[in-house]
Amino acid sequence: MLEKINLSKKMDKREFKETMNVLTARLGMLQRECRELGIPVIVVFEGFGAAGKGTLINRLIQPLDPRGFKVYSIGPESKEEKMHPFLWRFWTKTPADGRIAIFDRSWYRRVLLERFEGLTAEGQIGYAYQEIVSFEKMLSDSGTVIIKLFLDITQEEQKKRFHKLLANEETAWRVSKKDLRRNKHFEEYKVMNEEMLQKTDTDFAPWTVVEAMDKEYAAAKVLCTVVSHLEKQIEEARASAKTPESANRRHTAGTLFQASVLDSVDLSLSYTQEEYKMHLKKLQKKLSLLHSELYRRRIPVVLGFEGWDAGGKGGAIKRLTKCLDPRGYAVNPTAAPNDIEKTHHYLWRFWQNMPKAGHIAIFDRTWYGRVMVERIEGFCTCEEWQRAYKEINDMEEHIANAGAIVIKFWMHIDKDEQERRFQERMSIPEKQWKITDEDWRNREKWDAYEEAVDEMLIRTSTTYAPWVIVEGNDKYYARIKVLKTVVDAIEERLKQT
Amino acid sequence: MLEKINLSKKMDKREFKETMNVLTARLGMLQRECRELGIPVIVVFEGFGAAGKGTLINRLIQPLDPRGFKVYSIGPESKEEKMHPFLWRFWTKTPADGRIAIFDRSWYRRVLLERFEGLTAEGQIGYAYQEIVSFEKMLSDSGTVIIKLFLDITQEEQKKRFHKLLANEETAWRVSKKDLRRNKHFEEYKVMNEEMLQKTDTDFAPWTVVEAMDKEYAAAKVLCTVVSHLEKQIEEARASAKTPESANRRHTAGTLFQASVLDSVDLSLSYTQEEYKMHLKKLQKKLSLLHSELYRRRIPVVLGFEGWDAGGKGGAIKRLTKCLDPRGYAVNPTAAPNDIEKTHHYLWRFWQNMPKAGHIAIFDRTWYGRVMVERIEGFCTCEEWQRAYKEINDMEEHIANAGAIVIKFWMHIDKDEQERRFQERMSIPEKQWKITDEDWRNREKWDAYEEAVDEMLIRTSTTYAPWVIVEGNDKYYARIKVLKTVVDAIEERLKQT
Repeated sequence: MLEKINLSKKMDKREFKETMNVLTARLGMLQRECRELGIPVIVVFEGFGAAGKGTLINRLIQPLDPRGFKVYSIGPESKEEKMHPFLWRFWTKTPADGRIAIFDRSWYRRVLLERFEGLTAEGQIGYAYQEIVSFEKMLSDSGTVIIKLFLDITQEEQKKRFHKLLANEETAWRVSKKDLRRNKHFEEYKVMNEEMLQKTDTDFAPWTVVEAMDKEYAAAKVLCTVVSHLEKQIEEARASAKTPESANRRHTAGTLFQASVLDSVDLSLSYTQEEYKMHLKKLQKKLSLLHSELYRRRIPVVLGFEGWDAGGKGGAIKRLTKCLDPRGYAVNPTAAPNDIEKTHHYLWRFWQNMPKAGHIAIFDRTWYGRVMVERIEGFCTCEEWQRAYKEINDMEEHIANAGAIVIKFWMHIDKDEQERRFQERMSIPEKQWKITDEDWRNREKWDAYEEAVDEMLIRTSTTYAPWVIVEGNDKYYARIKVLKTVVDAIEERLKQT
Repeated sequence: MLEKINLSKKMDKREFKETMNVLTARLGMLQRECRELGIPVIVVFEGFGAAGKGTLINRLIQPLDPRGFKVYSIGPESKEEKMHPFLWRFWTKTPADGRIAIFDRSWYRRVLLERFEGLTAEGQIGYAYQEIVSFEKMLSDSGTVIIKLFLDITQEEQKKRFHKLLANEETAWRVSKKDLRRNKHFEEYKVMNEEMLQKTDTDFAPWTVVEAMDKEYAAAKVLCTVVSHLEKQIEEARASAKTPESANRRHTAGTLFQASVLDSVDLSLSYTQEEYKMHLKKLQKKLSLLHSELYRRRIPVVLGFEGWDAGGKGGAIKRLTKCLDPRGYAVNPTAAPNDIEKTHHYLWRFWQNMPKAGHIAIFDRTWYGRVMVERIEGFCTCEEWQRAYKEINDMEEHIANAGAIVIKFWMHIDKDEQERRFQERMSIPEKQWKITDEDWRNREKWDAYEEAVDEMLIRTSTTYAPWVIVEGNDKYYARIKVLKTVVDAIEERLKQT
């Protein structure tokens, strides 16, 4: 994309002033419209060093209402960031509905600066592109406008600008040795940029190359690009608000031949109290030692718990955490999303709680709500929950690739056992708070859930993040199976590394 | 407090089991009550190394609903944390209403471990105690229960435990050289602990020393202490809910002789357009260079803007940020608190945006809402806003002591000028969104605001964080005064350091 760029474009003072007046007024208005429509916006600035990112970002934000945007300057990863999957620091910064996030350098560091410095292994590059495209697609699919600007200057111009900065005592510190090295090997670095532009230029998040030799031309082009992207998205949002919702048609084809995973689960499996106590003691002791080993080797663990109401999630989690060091694990319960969470991508809140290296994160209910309760209650469209299988797989793959052990448990009981447990909860005063009318209402939707769960188990059980179905009619059996699965998985991993 | 402790206390197995059964059931119930009543709870674990903090914390959280608590393990400050005022990392972790935050080590590190290691200068110790007490008082005053547990063991017992850990390959890494050094110089370290206990044992956040030689005795005492603190607070919360609100009586004594700062402001000050343009250009250029110098010297800057509606805050902020590097500043607008913010201490949300070293944080409206709009609209009680003057002064002192430049601007116009500006906004289509019915309603309360502002300016203008009253009837004059004040303050500071 850089080959065909004519870098000699200029703008004269008067033309510039007039254009900017029109664009800034328009931009302020569009920002207010995006807020009203709840459209989140991401603007990414990439490009060659000294191309003027700082100045251009300031130009862009001057007409904006500061209540609605935030600028993120993305430097090398901090220690804390290094201990998380690569995308963690970007997911946690994605904008809420109606807000604008501006990135001065971004997730593209990995395939640009860090690749050039040899920090990103060449073997990782292909996968890195794939992750970036998947990340941008998820955001775009959920309605985020992604505007990517690449600032282009020539090698000579860059050299001139570096030297000007170096000549002044007050600005010399801004030019690093790495900057100079990239200038020296400009052609080589440019090839990487070219490849990046090609691999990540998609219909849902296209690149715009900004000729940045002339600062005024560049400023006008940046504003103009942002304005036209916002106008387009606003128009689409208004149009889709008018057309009747056809998205919720159920795709029922194929349900006849649908595979059922749950039907074949053997719920008669059980342990006696003695067997249970013996296993429990042994496994808890083992797990306690393994936890310490995980910490030393900096391996993160993600354990997701799903299952029928009263399926025994809480009890299993209790036995699991009993002998863990509280400084190395956290239980993250998932309730209905709060006000803030509602204004973000549905995966955003789970990213907040992804464990850092050496820590265990236990999720009591998970991101699978998207394909269960949200699907069944109609909280999201059919397109949305169908898209979610791949989105979730991509997220789990990313986390697993960053070194984490990822396991999901489905705590399975049958309908009679659930009723028995509900009745028990109602009759014991200390347990009454655990049961609500909603639990009874959900029970009536058992069949719809069963269909959703079956589909979920099939579509999202992967080699890197398997589902483990736990036969839960007998609590003893279920708790031991959970513990044993976790212990085995950790031991297996420790052997490999 | 440690002198009189009898460390030989024990508990037999059966007594322990019975006690724990009662306490764990009670604790689960109390947690639910705290949630219903919206009571935030902080539990701090301090004490000698190897006293069993990890195990005891796990004992405490087992009966708790994981939806309601979080454990924070407080190690040495990270790079990011070092670039903020000391209390920043604790303020941002204070629990929301109805939630429990458990600290494994805490803000006491500074006067214990770090003091022992010589990281905290002896001259800072006195001030450090003062800051801790002030921090705990603010939280306690706003209804947070603070439970502080100090785990006590003998030098010999500690040595024995360290050696047991060292003897096992899997646990040896848990004992550091620093641990051994503190064991060797136990008496010296104990004196520091003793002093800390004395200086920070207050009626609103008392210490409980837990004899931790016998693990079961210690576990029972920890749970029992937490249970009794919660019971007391719940009882008080219920009682105060019943008594009629007497807190909102206005303290009117003294208003007759009240000093008026605003009356003596000379609103006729003005600049011609040429003067304005000349000053503006010069000051913006200067500021741009100073910003870069601030960054290099790692000096943070906090600028607060308050003033009458249409007083010119936005315009002044625009001129101020025009030539700044967007990577080094952020404008933080303050609207009515959102759902999450409402469940925290009123200062919590401002702590989130305190700048790190070398950055400028501009607040468009500030924490002074507490003593203006919240006071006038009755959003907080009279006791609360009266207490706020000291709370705000303490916060600003803490930030200034951490090295920040702190300036607050009051953008002042008279009532006629406000009306003129409101009318102008109504008549220009692009500006109509800026004016709402609420602005007109607020205008009717001008006199009440004037009284509140006068009191605020007097009580909270300090040497470390002065108020600057900006004569705002002439916009040119106002903008230049703001810019010049900021430039002068930075230059002054750079001279000193």
